[in-house]
Amino acid sequence: MTHYRLTLEYLGTRYRGWQAQKNAETVANQVERAARGVFTTVHELYGSGRTDAGVHALAQVAHLKADRPKNPRANLKLALNDLLPPDIAVLEIRETSADFHARYQAKERIYLYQILRRRSAFGADLCWWVKDPLNVKKMQDAAALLIGKHDFGSFCDQDGEKASDTRMDLRGIEIKEDGALILLRFRADRYLWKQVRRMTGFLAEVGRGRYKPEQAQALLAKPSRELAPYTAPPSGLFLEKVLYTGERFGAALNPVVFIA
Amino acid sequence: MTHYRLTLEYLGTRYRGWQAQKNAETVANQVERAARGVFTTVHELYGSGRTDAGVHALAQVAHLKADRPKNPRANLKLALNDLLPPDIAVLEIRETSADFHARYQAKERIYLYQILRRRSAFGADLCWWVKDPLNVKKMQDAAALLIGKHDFGSFCDQDGEKASDTRMDLRGIEIKEDGALILLRFRADRYLWKQVRRMTGFLAEVGRGRYKPEQAQALLAKPSRELAPYTAPPSGLFLEKVLYTGERFGAALNPVVFIA
Repeated sequence: MTHYRLTLEYLGTRYRGWQAQKNAETVANQVERAARGVFTTVHELYGSGRTDAGVHALAQVAHLKADRPKNPRANLKLALNDLLPPDIAVLEIRETSADFHARYQAKERIYLYQILRRRSAFGADLCWWVKDPLNVKKMQDAAALLIGKHDFGSFCDQDGEKASDTRMDLRGIEIKEDGALILLRFRADRYLWKQVRRMTGFLAEVGRGRYKPEQAQALLAKPSRELAPYTAPPSGLFLEKVLYTGERFGAALNPVVFIA
Repeated sequence: MTHYRLTLEYLGTRYRGWQAQKNAETVANQVERAARGVFTTVHELYGSGRTDAGVHALAQVAHLKADRPKNPRANLKLALNDLLPPDIAVLEIRETSADFHARYQAKERIYLYQILRRRSAFGADLCWWVKDPLNVKKMQDAAALLIGKHDFGSFCDQDGEKASDTRMDLRGIEIKEDGALILLRFRADRYLWKQVRRMTGFLAEVGRGRYKPEQAQALLAKPSRELAPYTAPPSGLFLEKVLYTGERFGAALNPVVFIA
């Protein structure tokens, strides 16, 4: 059995998220199907984390345990890509140590969110189009208040989650304007369910003027899902990078897809 | 009855082209349906030309003849966009003279084609991914030989079209590299069926080295569909601009959607 580390890019629009499912088409289903075409036996495929339905990835990481390639001379990356649909691409596949676990060893997950300030027929699957004018400075002010170790229960979709489980360390939020786009980048080791989309929804409400930046503090002080009700759509969200021990990420905050 | 000129942007992926059809979903069907929601009566909707299934538009022009808006105070552009799906957008609607005809008065149609030199999960609907290395200089050399008044029967998909009908004046082809993209822009008053995709297919074959640039002359001298058999896929094609009397177009050749 050989252990591989895969880096994958996908457009999540057509899929019910990453996680393998029996009765719905998911990205992991597709990757596993391709792997079964390339390897004699596939023992395990495991992603760094779930992405929800409609969410994209620039560099999802997964580990794959498999026996011998059917064609020992095949270029594994090309062979997998030949069997994958056009909206999923293997960017890299390389052998890794037997103890590498894509999920449990991930140290940081970086997400990018694209808000588009005008309607675009080409951006519908890749952005969230916000009609109302947004004050980016106020969004940045509110974002600064969210950074750090807090109880993010107000930004969690999970019913009945215990307060002890809704504490997390939000390491950073960067917000930048780029033409008609507003880009948001989030950094943390882990997130609560739909947290990035709920934080983005809240920050957009701040930008619209419906919330004040200071209300971020109230949401953190008294966690309640009633307070931050808006969840930004999955179309604008990209898993940008997953970091493991010793890895760093310093790329400039740029659009994934620039809409002219 | 009021006469309007519409400019429309659309992602053609989901549609069987522009032209209204009874048993298939087309862009014109969607626009007409939205217009029926906004106006009391819709008499005519007519585009500058058909775009084929899967082909996109940055600025399709159409004329619309309609009676009174249901809401006399409505902003017509916003009202139409509210009723259109996210992959179609009205960029402009304005009143025009009763004799304006979107198709018969168009003087020039400009098409853009995007070739992508690497696999991208995000570019599948917006580009043609060509795996083989392409020599852009040779593509430019071949393109230069196509410009002018010729019989383009070798680049026409229509069976039984008479030679007299396959003559046209190709006013220009520009080809430019932009990162991982190769952009091609075609200018003419009219085209034969699938001509742009057939010319693009031929130019890519030249770039791959399977044809020599000089073979463009042979294809023009002895029109035969057997000679230029490759049709580039619709995904990379955009109707970029339609010009009417007195209008000019001098925009730089830039990607529609830039894939990072």
